[in-house]
Amino acid sequence: MAQKVRIALDAMGGDFGPSVVVPGAGISLTRHPDTEFILFGDSAAINRQLDKHPAMKAVSRVVHTDVAITMEEKPSQALRRGRKTSSMWLALDAVRKGEADVAVSAGNTGALMAMSRFNLRMLPGIDRPAIACVWPTIRSESVVLDVGASIGADARHLASLAIMGSAMARVLFDIERPTVGLLNIGVEEVKGVEEVKEAAELLRSMDLPELEFIGFVEGDGIGKGAADVIVTEGFSGNIALKTAEGTARQIAEYLRSAMSRTWRSKIGYLFAKSAFKALRDKMDPRKVNGGVFLGLNGVVIKSHGGTDAEGFASAVDVGYEMVRYDLLTKINQTFNRDGGSLTRMPTAQEAVS
Amino acid sequence: MAQKVRIALDAMGGDFGPSVVVPGAGISLTRHPDTEFILFGDSAAINRQLDKHPAMKAVSRVVHTDVAITMEEKPSQALRRGRKTSSMWLALDAVRKGEADVAVSAGNTGALMAMSRFNLRMLPGIDRPAIACVWPTIRSESVVLDVGASIGADARHLASLAIMGSAMARVLFDIERPTVGLLNIGVEEVKGVEEVKEAAELLRSMDLPELEFIGFVEGDGIGKGAADVIVTEGFSGNIALKTAEGTARQIAEYLRSAMSRTWRSKIGYLFAKSAFKALRDKMDPRKVNGGVFLGLNGVVIKSHGGTDAEGFASAVDVGYEMVRYDLLTKINQTFNRDGGSLTRMPTAQEAVS
Repeated sequence: MAQKVRIALDAMGGDFGPSVVVPGAGISLTRHPDTEFILFGDSAAINRQLDKHPAMKAVSRVVHTDVAITMEEKPSQALRRGRKTSSMWLALDAVRKGEADVAVSAGNTGALMAMSRFNLRMLPGIDRPAIACVWPTIRSESVVLDVGASIGADARHLASLAIMGSAMARVLFDIERPTVGLLNIGVEEVKGVEEVKEAAELLRSMDLPELEFIGFVEGDGIGKGAADVIVTEGFSGNIALKTAEGTARQIAEYLRSAMSRTWRSKIGYLFAKSAFKALRDKMDPRKVNGGVFLGLNGVVIKSHGGTDAEGFASAVDVGYEMVRYDLLTKINQTFNRDGGSLTRMPTAQEAVS
Repeated sequence: MAQKVRIALDAMGGDFGPSVVVPGAGISLTRHPDTEFILFGDSAAINRQLDKHPAMKAVSRVVHTDVAITMEEKPSQALRRGRKTSSMWLALDAVRKGEADVAVSAGNTGALMAMSRFNLRMLPGIDRPAIACVWPTIRSESVVLDVGASIGADARHLASLAIMGSAMARVLFDIERPTVGLLNIGVEEVKGVEEVKEAAELLRSMDLPELEFIGFVEGDGIGKGAADVIVTEGFSGNIALKTAEGTARQIAEYLRSAMSRTWRSKIGYLFAKSAFKALRDKMDPRKVNGGVFLGLNGVVIKSHGGTDAEGFASAVDVGYEMVRYDLLTKINQTFNRDGGSLTRMPTAQEAVS
């Protein structure tokens, strides 16, 4: 049997700490028994939880620390206060030292990103990290990135995002050559930003065997599943993600109020209860919990801070799959072979000036 | 009684031309009898429709032209081919010449924007146009701009958007001092783009009597109705709008398939039919049809090209209200009094360099 997947957990991350992290990891363990954990944080609190989850206890090692990063700390503060000592840092450090294959944290996103960059460093050829998420679509699911790690992107960074995103899609969706679309707008006279048009040319000219570039996708194409991978810079990607979440909540609210309007609609609700449950499951944000930090020399998964055990389990699942199906190897393959053309190739702007 | 609102219609715009434009305007006329129309386009086709709608015929004048801009034409092409001759241009020209108070077109957005700028010119103090839309929220409705007229924005342009958007909110929602939020992201270390942070400082320091600046709003705040006016530059605004539309369609699709899964859910659907109808009405994109071009020396309304008469009527309604409640006067008030501080004030970057 293959080696176990070793997962480092920031047990103090998120709104609920070990009381969500331990049972959450326990749920994931039932789905992937070939996992073992190192938990970083307050050992008393962690052990209390492990005592309630013997299966977890059997595959876990606890490393105590008193320092935990709060959700309010600024990244710079967190680095100053928590470097080398906090549960978040230690989980990342386990990945750097090769003691774990992936780190999962439900903590402060900005702090986790700053510590990840500082500790793990970037992969050669990539200058800035990205956060990728799994986006449910009418067809199935897509990888969308960057949803907020860094603002703005030149053509080469967008091409790197395409390469990393398609590696992630190959891991998650088990497809040989994922389709990739660049998020763009179709309204403005010039039809989009210069960098995005340049990135399209770059991806076309690279013609990579690992991805099929299909051109531009507008915002409404994401939910349609227009491409397996949707690429954009972090500002608009974050706006898109949050806006979709807001719209989903808004419609759920409309639906709730519509179904409780009259006695007829209430009866209808009772009859269709299982259908509504299926719908709720389909829209359950916990199922797609787990943002993947890409571009780092190591795999880091960010869980929502406010999620429950079920949601945290999804984030651990994502971490497991990234390791089991060799995300980093897949990314490096492309960069080692074709990354040169990303750094050598001048952008259109440079070529002109 | 007040003067009639005079509306110039590009009768050839959109996928269906006069067969949607005339009955659509007719529906709006029943809601606002103090309206009259000038219709530009193929007079034979227009008159055939007017014969079917005598109430419209009684308040309409037809100006014939053979030239119509297609949905596929690039803005530059459209300008070359259709300047001074096309139904779109002539409708805008009627506004410029003071023969109409507002132009409504369901035609090609890029062409309409290019012709509007070329013909009507910008308001003094505003250098680029914006498209504003009405966004349904859990609370009620908000104005969101820019949803795609121009890409990127410095702090001063964002402040202009805030002023124009709140003028529009005062017209539509009948509130004295609308709340205004700047769309931003909360993930990245520096929490958003430099220009957006500068715009926040600028709006705070201007402390305008016409709007209440409430700070940053994330993507999921739009649907919550976090502010009456949401301001962002055109790329992310367009992505947000299209993504929300896509998500709404996706959930409607989920709901349809959930309700037809079992005989129980089908019975439930029958009982709750009126509730589903209410939900459909609430999510009906035709009700919020009508993008407002802001920043021009005249009012221009863009209807979706593929809409039906009901949808086109909403766009005409928006045009009517913008004129009746003096959008341009409201915008100019602020700019004439405080616009100076937008042009005089150096941006933080300039102040430093």
